[in-house]
Amino acid sequence: SLDKIRLQSLAAANLVTNMELSLKKVNYFSQGLGATIDTDVTSPTQVENLAWASRFYRRIMVIPDRRPPTAALAKWDEPGDCWCAPPDTKRDGKVQLGVHLPSRIFPDQLTIEHIPMTAVPGKDISNAPQNVELWVKSDKPAIPRPGSSHNCESEGPRGWICLGTVTYDIRGANHVQIFDLKAQTQDPIDHAFVRITKNWGADHTCLYRVRLHGAYDGPDHDYQATE
Amino acid sequence: SLDKIRLQSLAAANLVTNMELSLKKVNYFSQGLGATIDTDVTSPTQVENLAWASRFYRRIMVIPDRRPPTAALAKWDEPGDCWCAPPDTKRDGKVQLGVHLPSRIFPDQLTIEHIPMTAVPGKDISNAPQNVELWVKSDKPAIPRPGSSHNCESEGPRGWICLGTVTYDIRGANHVQIFDLKAQTQDPIDHAFVRITKNWGADHTCLYRVRLHGAYDGPDHDYQATE
Amino acid sequence: SLDKIRLQSLAAANLVTNMELSLKKVNYFSQGLGATIDTDVTSPTQVENLAWASRFYRRIMVIPDRRPPTAALAKWDEPGDCWCAPPDTKRDGKVQLGVHLPSRIFPDQLTIEHIPMTAVPGKDISNAPQNVELWVKSDKPAIPRPGSSHNCESEGPRGWICLGTVTYDIRGANHVQIFDLKAQTQDPIDHAFVRITKNWGADHTCLYRVRLHGAYDGPDHDYQATE
Ligand SMILES: [K+]
Ligand SMILES: [K+]
Ligand SMILES: [K+]
Repeated sequence: SLDKIRLQSLAAANLVTNMELSLKKVNYFSQGLGATIDTDVTSPTQVENLAWASRFYRRIMVIPDRRPPTAALAKWDEPGDCWCAPPDTKRDGKVQLGVHLPSRIFPDQLTIEHIPMTAVPGKDISNAPQNVELWVKSDKPAIPRPGSSHNCESEGPRGWICLGTVTYDIRGANHVQIFDLKAQTQDPIDHAFVRITKNWGADHTCLYRVRLHGAYDGPDHDYQATE
Repeated sequence: SLDKIRLQSLAAANLVTNMELSLKKVNYFSQGLGATIDTDVTSPTQVENLAWASRFYRRIMVIPDRRPPTAALAKWDEPGDCWCAPPDTKRDGKVQLGVHLPSRIFPDQLTIEHIPMTAVPGKDISNAPQNVELWVKSDKPAIPRPGSSHNCESEGPRGWICLGTVTYDIRGANHVQIFDLKAQTQDPIDHAFVRITKNWGADHTCLYRVRLHGAYDGPDHDYQATE
Repeated sequence: SLDKIRLQSLAAANLVTNMELSLKKVNYFSQGLGATIDTDVTSPTQVENLAWASRFYRRIMVIPDRRPPTAALAKWDEPGDCWCAPPDTKRDGKVQLGVHLPSRIFPDQLTIEHIPMTAVPGKDISNAPQNVELWVKSDKPAIPRPGSSHNCESEGPRGWICLGTVTYDIRGANHVQIFDLKAQTQDPIDHAFVRITKNWGADHTCLYRVRLHGAYDGPDHDYQATE
């Protein structure tokens, strides 16, 4: 049917788009490039293993064995290949993931992905992020991009500025969602954290993968001598 | 040529189909969801390492280092990323892989994949499964689906019922093959095993990946409060 | 725009081509098939960890933690999933990677891949190979393929012959590049090494993945009895 062809085309387009993202955009949250977790601004990891409870009640809440925050920076293959955290009491309940970047950049886009609801029992991905803010370490205020209004709700720690709030849509056509940041920094930065101010209803929040993109603070490599 | 375009289209369609399968269908054999091996109904793993023999004879039979049964539940990248077993003498020579599901379901489809013959020397994938039965633990008899005849040949252990036999075609256009089960259960189940009653000729059988799909025994998650 | 559609089509074609390569061609450098590193003809691995230096200078040269030569045989996901070596002083500065094949073959193609420059900061993949020779162990001279001229510049060790030089283009439309070898062997071989005679300018060379293809020295498996 025509509907099936359209769906197939959409799936193919998403597949190509997601592959291109990995090959065509630098991810400054990549551990391969040297990114590391900034534990000062990262929430504690979910510690209790609820697998026994879920098995007992014969109901699934995909709560995997405790994985470290780096799980939110790496690729995933299976349900549970993610980092999970309960509400962070020290931070008004908001979950944060902080990253030391491998180099200074002017951030411009954030990519968030979560497992699709169709891939888990009962379509329960209520632990997915909904509203996500990006904060970076800077002495100077952020500059809103043309046509954007600065829209972060919460207050951040001293010396950090917010570059925008984005909304992850668990019903989006593509589970890998790229967002333009609403403000830019005056200087290049190399410390950032994402703050989840709202999830889709669960008592904990999980991040399958977060990527940060931006303009590199330096010239492109000059290959002339070697051709 | 037109033939090349058709082949390319077919390959693209398979690529999209296989990706969609991972994102759009729950796999209740996923370890990420909590599936574990049921050792009571699982055959012993191939123990002898024939690599020396194969090297000696300068002929390849892809017999990898001993991998555990969980290898048959996980994704694969290379030849040998699979679980292998010799004929199971306790089970009339038939190889079995048993799985505790993470939740109760009404099974409806089985996915089997093997490395394509074009990816191994001499096109020898004679250790691939050919006829595969799906058995589940249930007190009540299976109900054939409309238009299907119950077609399991072998006898199973007491308290288990067969939901159908499927045939994996090593020359199929797609090496990832989804099969509709021929019968359904009266109650939701959470124990299953696949039984290979015939392979493609080798003296041992290997499984690259088996997935089980079905209807979840519970309501879909209700997101209304969090939108 | 039409340009975007063309780019999308090209990306889709590359995606399908690269997937097909893994499923439709035997890779005799696959560890899963039994390939192992031939340390006698392999250069020493880069030992110094320059991460500190790169962090200090706030400039990225993707020099990962020391990985063994097998990293050049395996798939990669992130920047740094590769094997790196400094100029090999014992071999006139040329970097070599040697492999014991799992079976005897007549080599015909070599596949080389590197991370695209768009996926690293400052587009600096100057550690990518540029000119690469394939050498194999044989007593008899190589036979040039019709229309090809034997074009290896360097001298190899006694008992080894060169089957051609290929050029990896860091600006190619596809970062996975397949090359036809310019000469063939008279007998099947099972020892090979690639020699990088020139890279794209860096003081060390990294290999993300090298694959070798060829004609298997044996008959195809006969399935008749099992259908
Ligand atoms: K992950
Ligand atoms: K596997
Ligand atoms: K690699």
